[in-house]
Amino acid sequence: MSKEKVWKLLVLVAIPIIVALLPTPAGLPPIAWLLFGLYLAAIVGLVLKPYSEPVILLATIAATAIVIGLYGAKDVKAAEVLKGYSSGTTWLVFAAFTLSAAFVITGLGKRIAYILIGKLGGTTLGLGYVTAILDLVIAPATPSNTARAGGIVFPIINSVAVALGSDPETSPRKAGHYLMVNVYMVTKTTSYMFLTAMAPNALALAMMSDILHIQLSWTGWALAAALPGLLMLVLTPFIIYKMYPPELKKVDNKKIAAAGLAELGPMTLREKMLAGVFVLALLGWIFAKSLGIDESSVAIGVMALSLILGIVTWDDVLKNKGGWNTLIWYGGIIGMSGVLTKAGFFKWLAEVLGETLNFGDHSMMAFFAIMFISVAIRYLFASGGAYVAAMVPVFATVGVVSGAPAMLLALGLLFSNAYGGALTHYGGAAAPIVFGAGYNDIRSWWIIGGVIAFLSLLVHMTIGVGWWEMLISMGII
Amino acid sequence: MSKEKVWKLLVLVAIPIIVALLPTPAGLPPIAWLLFGLYLAAIVGLVLKPYSEPVILLATIAATAIVIGLYGAKDVKAAEVLKGYSSGTTWLVFAAFTLSAAFVITGLGKRIAYILIGKLGGTTLGLGYVTAILDLVIAPATPSNTARAGGIVFPIINSVAVALGSDPETSPRKAGHYLMVNVYMVTKTTSYMFLTAMAPNALALAMMSDILHIQLSWTGWALAAALPGLLMLVLTPFIIYKMYPPELKKVDNKKIAAAGLAELGPMTLREKMLAGVFVLALLGWIFAKSLGIDESSVAIGVMALSLILGIVTWDDVLKNKGGWNTLIWYGGIIGMSGVLTKAGFFKWLAEVLGETLNFGDHSMMAFFAIMFISVAIRYLFASGGAYVAAMVPVFATVGVVSGAPAMLLALGLLFSNAYGGALTHYGGAAAPIVFGAGYNDIRSWWIIGGVIAFLSLLVHMTIGVGWWEMLISMGII
Repeated sequence: MSKEKVWKLLVLVAIPIIVALLPTPAGLPPIAWLLFGLYLAAIVGLVLKPYSEPVILLATIAATAIVIGLYGAKDVKAAEVLKGYSSGTTWLVFAAFTLSAAFVITGLGKRIAYILIGKLGGTTLGLGYVTAILDLVIAPATPSNTARAGGIVFPIINSVAVALGSDPETSPRKAGHYLMVNVYMVTKTTSYMFLTAMAPNALALAMMSDILHIQLSWTGWALAAALPGLLMLVLTPFIIYKMYPPELKKVDNKKIAAAGLAELGPMTLREKMLAGVFVLALLGWIFAKSLGIDESSVAIGVMALSLILGIVTWDDVLKNKGGWNTLIWYGGIIGMSGVLTKAGFFKWLAEVLGETLNFGDHSMMAFFAIMFISVAIRYLFASGGAYVAAMVPVFATVGVVSGAPAMLLALGLLFSNAYGGALTHYGGAAAPIVFGAGYNDIRSWWIIGGVIAFLSLLVHMTIGVGWWEMLISMGII
Repeated sequence: MSKEKVWKLLVLVAIPIIVALLPTPAGLPPIAWLLFGLYLAAIVGLVLKPYSEPVILLATIAATAIVIGLYGAKDVKAAEVLKGYSSGTTWLVFAAFTLSAAFVITGLGKRIAYILIGKLGGTTLGLGYVTAILDLVIAPATPSNTARAGGIVFPIINSVAVALGSDPETSPRKAGHYLMVNVYMVTKTTSYMFLTAMAPNALALAMMSDILHIQLSWTGWALAAALPGLLMLVLTPFIIYKMYPPELKKVDNKKIAAAGLAELGPMTLREKMLAGVFVLALLGWIFAKSLGIDESSVAIGVMALSLILGIVTWDDVLKNKGGWNTLIWYGGIIGMSGVLTKAGFFKWLAEVLGETLNFGDHSMMAFFAIMFISVAIRYLFASGGAYVAAMVPVFATVGVVSGAPAMLLALGLLFSNAYGGALTHYGGAAAPIVFGAGYNDIRSWWIIGGVIAFLSLLVHMTIGVGWWEMLISMGII
């Protein structure tokens, strides 16, 4: 083990021990205090990352079950820490990961990209919009940002940049600088447009539902996000184009598209079946709730169908490490959050905050303040999942205390979870991949990211809030 | 898709449809009848295997959740079909799979083997006992028969056979025929000696507990199995030796051991740590219940510790396909069995069987009959897991109806689940590997398997039953 790993490990082991040695705050059940120490260690572990996320969570789960067992707690049972693994959230994300992989494996993602390039990519600005449309089209069934932006959109737009003669070293500003940063910025918008467009979405919703007592269907989510999301998708490629205009304006898109499509050959049966399964998934998610079916059942059904039809093989699923990692660590953190809730931690936290903080009649001001902090704090987080685990319960609890409208708060936080990641070149899973292409420098990335993230916040807090209040008053969400 | 796959798939799709079209039996809730059709399709799917087990179960789960949702059942909820994934059983097996892999990856399994060969392998019969002891020593933490018998014991004993000049084609009877079939037959005994010695053990226990209302700890299991198990381990290498005496009697074991150990080099830190973790796991499982801790928490803790110490890496776990397969399909079948129980199916089945079958005062005769059938029926099953899913609930239900003592019935069935697999060259996961070495013919394998399996049954029904009754009367199990 490296020295760095050893001290990180010592920090993580020390956290629950120190918390346990401190006196239990008044009004909090002792077991909840012990569990809080373990949860805190898990979050710090997700940030320090001495091991990958699943290892951190497996260790936390085991420690939690053993602590509950030894302590002999009555309100919460050891076996409950495993409950996250039977959570629909975990399975929704895991199953949709298979669909993400299917777009890469079958080549359907590539085909859609080249068709769009051929139709709309006659200028560099047009290519920016091609990126936005491509990302939006496949977003509903690709919760893996790594698979969508990193695995489908990035390689194609990157090869387009190269084909346009833009070199990361000698001529980044010719086209690559613009195209690459745009890939990331638009995916930070599409990611909040569907429950299934980014893995941490479902995680955040599950954690928020417990505390805010809200219910949001797949369709409700998509409707609420549609107006601010589409607006930002229209604005983003244009704003970046104006801020850092690429030197090259015109593109011989027909040649690029023809070459790309020729390489793919005629559309395969698997691609056609995937297109069908994709439509089925969309219809399923849109109509699931009204038929009494869970969104996760639709996702598992669609996954099973893809396997039965041979669109992907079980071996493809076994090799899809991102899916398994997510299954293990999401299930773990949802289970941890569940036992903490059951032990009465968040109830106590709300009481304490209620006595300490006094927002008076300024609940809307509190809402805006929480939203601003939820974005700004993302400079500190290198992972959307870690941010969700650490901050979502806190923001939701503060929101409850402040008296801010629960559904507005939920939607605001659910969406800022995605666009907040636009700020930095490490803010989301796809960022290091896109940044790693070498066309972009940190300074211009952060400037663009700051503009896009805070503009998104402004749009959401004005047009967004108005739109959501309308949907709520109409009983749609 | 091949033609064979298509007709198998059609059969599987037809089963729940035909069941649904048939009138619901009197006294059974309609939803339970629909779910039974799906469960039946899953079991037939596990036997026909048009796809691997996880695919069958994922499809079944999705169909079940959708059927429950569309039907609007009140007693059972769609989300409950996922409950198997938060079952301690599933996680116990999954976590212990990592330990199995660790014995292979670190080389500790090999080292123990060569040490035993050096000490006790001076004759072919001695090598038979080396195999038994080696398999017994690592059995408590290697629930993967493929990893233990197929991945550790088999390669070493196979290379010993080759080193002794026994060739599968020209001289199988010199040593290889005896050594190979013995590898499989002893593992069919060690597999029932610990809850954690074979994956389907925990599955069978979980399914049986629901129906027979029994509780059995890791320690209770090990104690109950110890007497018949050790006796069979003493008998097996000797009986096979007498039935098919190898031509070679003496072995230059010192040379083989020295060469093997030289190749391994000095014991590594990882091997030492694994030995420590293994002892910790044993202590944990022995004392878990008395400390109020679940056996599954011990298993997850030990897995996490192995990862933290770097004995295995998370990448090793990701690559361990057997573990993921088991996680998905065990969790699925446990969830299916759970919703079927909740919907009232097994209660109804017991009532119907109670009216139909009349054992009078012959409950012990019924017990023996069930036990005999539980072994004989294994000629039909190529997978211990499929046998458990299909037959354990039925045998347990018939047992309840017959009035046979619940704990005797449970122990009898839990153990016959392993030794019943001795019968054929496809009876367990390790069988095709060992048989595939080419030293054995089907005829002699089936003769030896028949002798070992039915002798085990005889031992269990005489000495075993006496031993279990003693343990029960002393309040130990």
